[in-house]
Amino acid sequence: MMLHNEIHSQPHVLEALLEHGLPAVESAAAAIRNRRIDYIYLAARGTSENAGIYGQYIFGAFNGLPVALAAPSLFTVYNRPPQLSNALVIGISQSGQSPDIIGVIESAVQQGALSLAITNDPNSPLARSAALSLDIQAGVEQAVAATKTYTAQLLTLAMLSCTLAEDSERRAELAQLPSAVATILSAEEPIVAAAERLKDMRHCIVLGRGYHFATALEWSLKLKELTYVVAERYSTAEFQHGPIALVEPGFPILAVAPSDPDAATTRALLQRLADERGAELLVLSDDDDTLALGTMGLRLPPGVPSWLAPIVSIVPGQLFCYHLALARGLDPGTPRGLSKVTKTR
Amino acid sequence: MMLHNEIHSQPHVLEALLEHGLPAVESAAAAIRNRRIDYIYLAARGTSENAGIYGQYIFGAFNGLPVALAAPSLFTVYNRPPQLSNALVIGISQSGQSPDIIGVIESAVQQGALSLAITNDPNSPLARSAALSLDIQAGVEQAVAATKTYTAQLLTLAMLSCTLAEDSERRAELAQLPSAVATILSAEEPIVAAAERLKDMRHCIVLGRGYHFATALEWSLKLKELTYVVAERYSTAEFQHGPIALVEPGFPILAVAPSDPDAATTRALLQRLADERGAELLVLSDDDDTLALGTMGLRLPPGVPSWLAPIVSIVPGQLFCYHLALARGLDPGTPRGLSKVTKTR
Repeated sequence: MMLHNEIHSQPHVLEALLEHGLPAVESAAAAIRNRRIDYIYLAARGTSENAGIYGQYIFGAFNGLPVALAAPSLFTVYNRPPQLSNALVIGISQSGQSPDIIGVIESAVQQGALSLAITNDPNSPLARSAALSLDIQAGVEQAVAATKTYTAQLLTLAMLSCTLAEDSERRAELAQLPSAVATILSAEEPIVAAAERLKDMRHCIVLGRGYHFATALEWSLKLKELTYVVAERYSTAEFQHGPIALVEPGFPILAVAPSDPDAATTRALLQRLADERGAELLVLSDDDDTLALGTMGLRLPPGVPSWLAPIVSIVPGQLFCYHLALARGLDPGTPRGLSKVTKTR
Repeated sequence: MMLHNEIHSQPHVLEALLEHGLPAVESAAAAIRNRRIDYIYLAARGTSENAGIYGQYIFGAFNGLPVALAAPSLFTVYNRPPQLSNALVIGISQSGQSPDIIGVIESAVQQGALSLAITNDPNSPLARSAALSLDIQAGVEQAVAATKTYTAQLLTLAMLSCTLAEDSERRAELAQLPSAVATILSAEEPIVAAAERLKDMRHCIVLGRGYHFATALEWSLKLKELTYVVAERYSTAEFQHGPIALVEPGFPILAVAPSDPDAATTRALLQRLADERGAELLVLSDDDDTLALGTMGLRLPPGVPSWLAPIVSIVPGQLFCYHLALARGLDPGTPRGLSKVTKTR
């Protein structure tokens, strides 16, 4: 139940962060604006890396900043760190404990690059080693699978992006997030039904592109952690460069497809997967025509702008995994082989 | 047989590229050295993206250049390209035809950033749109699944890395590649046996880290394209942040584990997967102790430096997929749902 409670706490967590998080974001943004920054170098693992992928799209689209995902082994295994001047080096970690992420931040500090830690523990080694630090303020997360800390990481990145750009229009859009998430949480039955229908799947593919790619990645990771389904994840573009060969009749595909400038392309692909390949399609969307392409659909609340959709769209994914675990007779509270803090070098 | 021939042509392709490719690489390197370059922005899809991941590690380790993998949708879907000044923008594509990769290069040119195309067709739209162009000279590739063009892309990147760094020691190491690949091709029987043993697998995980992560990615893509196995891929570090939960007794894991500074950590993980989780382990290595951890082992030729290992280690992976397809009664020449040139926006 701990996991279920944490999933349901997200409207409150997001609301509190919106209310209390802005001063720290503003001071970090001011420090970043004081430096010449050509690009972002971002280090993270697991769920936090999926948050980083969201950052890759919004910092690229709205702040003009390309984002390079770090290869931590260059720092900690090969001892050959790349040159990071003119980079903003960001480390994201719920616990702030992972030695490889700390290694990247320490190298950035040593090289004189600007560093920023985003953690759920402002006293963690990662937060203490970076020049700037943002606390995602999600409260202690007890379940092994990260849920509320993921959406709080996304919101922190979204707040940083619009504050850095001094974009008051986008900043105003943030306010609708808690209620959009609450809307999803108030109607769990269709999610339970979808989980029941797919309860025997052994593997699947999760698709999403652009802003929504992060949701595909995180949904797929939660499926693996909580339900042991071998869940591949692809952008809808990448998928067509090879992996589409996998799809045979009945193959389960979970599509993250909210309203988006790319929606027509996504719909064409889903149509092809349904008609030509006979895939079993679970579609996540706020759009009727897109939902109609699926064998099952989960409706997202309307009106969330596409750049913010990931903070909302992962929530039905989290609940789906929770209910799929139960339907499979698993205990979603304690996934096998995992611990809350993973220390890789 | 076309695919098998192309796999077997690789010693010849690599040798010809080493013999004829250097002048073009030298002139590209000279043009790059003339500019201030802070980082690389790299756009590619599918097999070419896996080559780009290899580039991420070697340009980071030996040229001090961070590599950001492009998010093409920022250019072609959202029409919000990030700012690319001080970037070297590289597009990699076998055909040189993919509109989204061309879109990234065109934006780089427009922004005044230095651009480089790496293709198998110097007259392709991608090659023509970039300021600099390198021809991987692999000859026409007829099989849908890319093999010789992948190793030729890796070698082109390796040649560019050591030429840019004016590193004659690493440049001398390139000469051993054709014979190392030929050694693998001369002993196909153990590969046939491993494919036979795993012929009924429905899914698996392919692991590799650092330089070897590219091989894990490409091996996994070939498995999907040619054998329809749902093949997940992870760095050994990332794997421990969640996906390890998937592994139950008998779960097939393919490990790319050549000699490397990280070998002890990899061995510890493989030991844990074998002892605690009862995984079915196929190990690719040049090291006896590492090979001994597997239920099956495929031996790599000794003495290949770890930064060049990916050009060699993918070859048994390609052959494994070819033979696995045959063992499963599939035609490896014509994977379902794929065409040689994929044009995504």
